[in-house]
Amino acid sequence: MATVRLLSDDELSDEAAAVFAEIRAARKTDYVNDFWRALAHDPVTLRRTWESLKQVMGPGTIDPLVKEMIYVAVSIAHGCDYCIHTHTASARAKGMTEAQFMELVSVVGMAAETNRLVTALGVEVDERFRTPPGA
Amino acid sequence: MATVRLLSDDELSDEAAAVFAEIRAARKTDYVNDFWRALAHDPVTLRRTWESLKQVMGPGTIDPLVKEMIYVAVSIAHGCDYCIHTHTASARAKGMTEAQFMELVSVVGMAAETNRLVTALGVEVDERFRTPPGA
Amino acid sequence: MATVRLLSDDELSDEAAAVFAEIRAARKTDYVNDFWRALAHDPVTLRRTWESLKQVMGPGTIDPLVKEMIYVAVSIAHGCDYCIHTHTASARAKGMTEAQFMELVSVVGMAAETNRLVTALGVEVDERFRTPPGA
Amino acid sequence: MATVRLLSDDELSDEAAAVFAEIRAARKTDYVNDFWRALAHDPVTLRRTWESLKQVMGPGTIDPLVKEMIYVAVSIAHGCDYCIHTHTASARAKGMTEAQFMELVSVVGMAAETNRLVTALGVEVDERFRTPPGA
Amino acid sequence: MATVRLLSDDELSDEAAAVFAEIRAARKTDYVNDFWRALAHDPVTLRRTWESLKQVMGPGTIDPLVKEMIYVAVSIAHGCDYCIHTHTASARAKGMTEAQFMELVSVVGMAAETNRLVTALGVEVDERFRTPPGA
Amino acid sequence: MATVRLLSDDELSDEAAAVFAEIRAARKTDYVNDFWRALAHDPVTLRRTWESLKQVMGPGTIDPLVKEMIYVAVSIAHGCDYCIHTHTASARAKGMTEAQFMELVSVVGMAAETNRLVTALGVEVDERFRTPPGA
Repeated sequence: MATVRLLSDDELSDEAAAVFAEIRAARKTDYVNDFWRALAHDPVTLRRTWESLKQVMGPGTIDPLVKEMIYVAVSIAHGCDYCIHTHTASARAKGMTEAQFMELVSVVGMAAETNRLVTALGVEVDERFRTPPGA
Repeated sequence: MATVRLLSDDELSDEAAAVFAEIRAARKTDYVNDFWRALAHDPVTLRRTWESLKQVMGPGTIDPLVKEMIYVAVSIAHGCDYCIHTHTASARAKGMTEAQFMELVSVVGMAAETNRLVTALGVEVDERFRTPPGA
Repeated sequence: MATVRLLSDDELSDEAAAVFAEIRAARKTDYVNDFWRALAHDPVTLRRTWESLKQVMGPGTIDPLVKEMIYVAVSIAHGCDYCIHTHTASARAKGMTEAQFMELVSVVGMAAETNRLVTALGVEVDERFRTPPGA
Repeated sequence: MATVRLLSDDELSDEAAAVFAEIRAARKTDYVNDFWRALAHDPVTLRRTWESLKQVMGPGTIDPLVKEMIYVAVSIAHGCDYCIHTHTASARAKGMTEAQFMELVSVVGMAAETNRLVTALGVEVDERFRTPPGA
Repeated sequence: MATVRLLSDDELSDEAAAVFAEIRAARKTDYVNDFWRALAHDPVTLRRTWESLKQVMGPGTIDPLVKEMIYVAVSIAHGCDYCIHTHTASARAKGMTEAQFMELVSVVGMAAETNRLVTALGVEVDERFRTPPGA
Repeated sequence: MATVRLLSDDELSDEAAAVFAEIRAARKTDYVNDFWRALAHDPVTLRRTWESLKQVMGPGTIDPLVKEMIYVAVSIAHGCDYCIHTHTASARAKGMTEAQFMELVSVVGMAAETNRLVTALGVEVDERFRTPPGA
């Protein structure tokens, strides 16, 4: 449940309205997620977050769908329900099938299990995995 | 630091030795990670973990390298240093470039930031993201 | 809120239906938790998770009620509301009293507090706690 | 690595020295864990933590060894290496066998996996698990 | 959703009623948070938690509002919705402005991002940050 | 332990070198943290992280020292040892006393405890804490 009110379009500062216009243009939809409506109380953070997200999730060396899947995986590990839903929706929009989603979930679960096993047993990194590449 | 001793090959129970033989055959190397040497104290969990890992990380609808990258992402979110190192090594062995690793890391960091922003603002899932596909 | 639809009995694949039959037989009830109805989209993970859970939570060297209590403790630490509720119900069904539940909760809270104190102060493991038994 | 210096006995304030004397008496050993030597910089928190720990881990409705095992489970979930080591040592001193430790670890791992599966699938608590006892 | 019933005033044990009276006196309001009504099932933990909270959040060397902000930050990192709401309310009651709340949130988000970047890259503490003060 | 090599000054790309020059100018020291030397493999993320950090931690409505303390608190909750050390050093450089550090730590510990108690008991946000300000 929200700790701040979601701002409607006519309550936005000029700076926030400008970011909303960019979001609409970039996503080719009039709909703006409630996340941005909450963040709009702080136009500076709204601007920075939008710019950072565009850069990080924009063209690079990893496939855009793969990046969304990584985003979903982290959101599951952090227990952020909102983030799981919105980024799963993005991944589906980019072509993730239901079988792929279930497989992604199984990888996250398995990683969680072995992460805890390793932590419990206190295993230190094997000598051969220690030297970073190119050292 | 380890909470149990790492078992050498000649200390293994027959059941544990059988799993080690499978790991060596599957990975085409004589080297067995210290994780398995710690887990070998419990041959039942050793067997189940190995079988589960083979199934989850085996052929499916997601590319094997992508699965490793998801594994690394979860391990970062959980703060498991051993898991980060070993699965990063696996991902590199499967073709992940250094540029891709750095990009993966930037996605994990960005997801962490927005996960916390959303949680702090208590944003509830937008109506349109609520109905699961095919409902 | 669900990211996938919960499957009803007549929507199950044959493999998923077989697991549901085993769950009903093992638990001596016709009721199947919603967790399994969500997982049923992926019959392979459904099967593996059910088999693993049976093995891990089955007869061993730790009392079944104690295992449920450990399960609840981990679920609290991970913030999984569903898991807290279902495993608390299991623990109560196995005889956990309300006084024991409140005492369990107090231990989890205390561990959380000292875990963070230790992490903040960066205390390294005392020499005498380092050598694993039998080393 | 420590963020504060560990205090030796002759650097303790009178209030901290009094708590150390109680720890030694209660544990029937002259050895005082480094955790307390770090916490000794703040005698008020040192006193409160020691009193709370005695109360929470003292006689109650749950077996002392079970409480230590719950403590270890939470410490694994939080990734506190120091806490895992010291409370595993306490549990071993109270009679935990190596088979029980490995079984505890397997329960924590399994709980971690299903916790993440449930979170990913967004399963809501079944109606029948919602009403608390005695409502 | 609650795992225990919230106790009304006329269901309280004498010990719990005494703590409620203190909470009402200290906070100068008849209203007692639902957290205390859940904790009231365990009067010993209720008493200890109330005493500890008074001590930790009482007069010290850090401004009371700053302590509330730190409390909110930790609650965000742990994903505790109830705690975020109640301590944000406390911070607002102590004078936190909406601009300060949004700034606090941005700091938490940024810390989450760099925390994960550092963990992913496995950076070890620089030599110069290792020696605690006064060593 | 590092997953990438720390870059020395003469291995930096022009873009990374430019950021290092800014860090040195802003912090009035020739010393550049190892975090930046690891991040330098990805000049785009290096630039974005530095710019974001400057903005978030720069002048605003919250005192700079308080921001550092919030940063430390989040780093403790996330278990990032590197971050705890470097931001504790920054906070000390901005005037945090040892008594304040210990008090900060006690607040983080207390928040961790009550966070887990609330999560375990499943307490829902009281009606009166639900409506965000100005709704």
